[in-house]
Amino acid sequence: MRQVHICEVGPRDGLQNARHRMTTEAKKRWVSALAAAGVEEIEVGSFVPPKLIPAMADTEEIVRHALGIAGLRVVALAPNVKGFERALQAGAHKVTFPVSASRRHSEANVRMSPEQMVAQVKTCVEMRGASGPQIEAGIATAFGCTLQGEVPEDDVVRLAAQLAEAGVDCIALADTVGYANPAQIRRLFRRVRAEVGDKLEAAHLHNTRGLGLANALAAFDEGVRHFDASLGGLGGCPFAPGASGNVVTEDLVFMFEAMGIPTGIDLDRLIEARRILGEALPEEPLYGHLAAAGLPKGFCAAA
Amino acid sequence: MRQVHICEVGPRDGLQNARHRMTTEAKKRWVSALAAAGVEEIEVGSFVPPKLIPAMADTEEIVRHALGIAGLRVVALAPNVKGFERALQAGAHKVTFPVSASRRHSEANVRMSPEQMVAQVKTCVEMRGASGPQIEAGIATAFGCTLQGEVPEDDVVRLAAQLAEAGVDCIALADTVGYANPAQIRRLFRRVRAEVGDKLEAAHLHNTRGLGLANALAAFDEGVRHFDASLGGLGGCPFAPGASGNVVTEDLVFMFEAMGIPTGIDLDRLIEARRILGEALPEEPLYGHLAAAGLPKGFCAAA
Repeated sequence: MRQVHICEVGPRDGLQNARHRMTTEAKKRWVSALAAAGVEEIEVGSFVPPKLIPAMADTEEIVRHALGIAGLRVVALAPNVKGFERALQAGAHKVTFPVSASRRHSEANVRMSPEQMVAQVKTCVEMRGASGPQIEAGIATAFGCTLQGEVPEDDVVRLAAQLAEAGVDCIALADTVGYANPAQIRRLFRRVRAEVGDKLEAAHLHNTRGLGLANALAAFDEGVRHFDASLGGLGGCPFAPGASGNVVTEDLVFMFEAMGIPTGIDLDRLIEARRILGEALPEEPLYGHLAAAGLPKGFCAAA
Repeated sequence: MRQVHICEVGPRDGLQNARHRMTTEAKKRWVSALAAAGVEEIEVGSFVPPKLIPAMADTEEIVRHALGIAGLRVVALAPNVKGFERALQAGAHKVTFPVSASRRHSEANVRMSPEQMVAQVKTCVEMRGASGPQIEAGIATAFGCTLQGEVPEDDVVRLAAQLAEAGVDCIALADTVGYANPAQIRRLFRRVRAEVGDKLEAAHLHNTRGLGLANALAAFDEGVRHFDASLGGLGGCPFAPGASGNVVTEDLVFMFEAMGIPTGIDLDRLIEARRILGEALPEEPLYGHLAAAGLPKGFCAAA
């Protein structure tokens, strides 16, 4: 009965960029609260070297905790084959790879060219076996890059084709640094869909310049039904200067529910999960409007 | 060459609800800075009794100042015939009337029923004469009301028809309390346009629940080309509890310019006008993302 699917990426995208460190116990409480609100999929961490991003050092333990929650799809990020092996071992249901369309961001983020990343992803597709996790490629900086500036749409379309060819199950287009606008969203999702069909699945949007929900609406109009989002709008990329603020989960859920499009998420319980997040990171700035304004008088969630 | 027209309502909608009072001299500097950025239309004040809203007591003087700026369209709000007489005297180019679709908001805001407000507007249309100002009716609480809750769409459509019949030049639909969602925006603008045709002109949106730009995009898709907005997202309604935050002018302009839709507004100079606003009200919270994040690398305004 969900008509859009929201993957909460705060425990990964949010915490890897937060100024303050969340304890492992607090992460577990937060993940549990998100699942209790009806969030069906959570990107719980990243299998990067702990010395590069210490906030992700407990990802194995968080994956294990999340796997114990009935019905929850557990996603982890892997930047390479080594990370994928750890994700396999941990038992994540889905592994997402950041594959940058910007050459400069790719080198800053994963120390590989886009072509080398495609080769890594291909190796992982081959090694996962029949019962292995779903593999997603998130095309990072698909709408522009703070390092490189403009990212040609042709580069994104070609990269998507290479990733489909490499055998990924699904592809997301990511506005890593919050440069996208609704016209660009419509154009690029349409072009990539024409190239890879239904393998194009998700929109990963940032609210850096306030256009997160407008871009989500534009993507929805183009047929996108899977969205990444982060509670309280936490998020960013440690290797993309200026990247900040994922689209705010609670505001995104409110938009869809108000439009009559069910998300399967209970807004009151989601706000409760935000409270738990706020308690765990009391000095971290949280974003979003719904938590401050509250639901409209007489508001009815989508049936 | 402007494809969308933005009316800055901060000096009226923003300041009437601000916690701090702006001096008359600072208002003039702000209005001048807005015009210098290319803003073509500014709602500079409200002809309400000064004892009800002291922040609007200098509206005559601000109108006079604004009329001295070449090319600027000067708008003022009037809540009744008495306010309209003051607006006529002052020489405003356009007068906007708040006509609430919610009976309870109408009584709280203007101490009249919607029907009595339509009669007031009709009287003003008749008294303005051939060279009088343009008359706009802004249908307040068109998308819901914090006092009444749901506002039936039929009430909005009927009110629009009555206002068209009363002879107003143009009609705006206002989401006074930030309840609207994009599906509702599309539905209601379509219904009202079917009723009153091109007299339906503007969208007056609030960002209370973060949906301001998504709603603006939805309205644009429905053919709306006139938008009210407020620099730094100031705004609210003193007689609608919980109303806050107009859609943020600089973020709205950025969205359209990024989409290739010219607004005639220079973003750098608009951010300069925001700086002047911030200096004039140093303790007032300002909203919006663009001012913090800056323009994307290599950004080009619409041609």
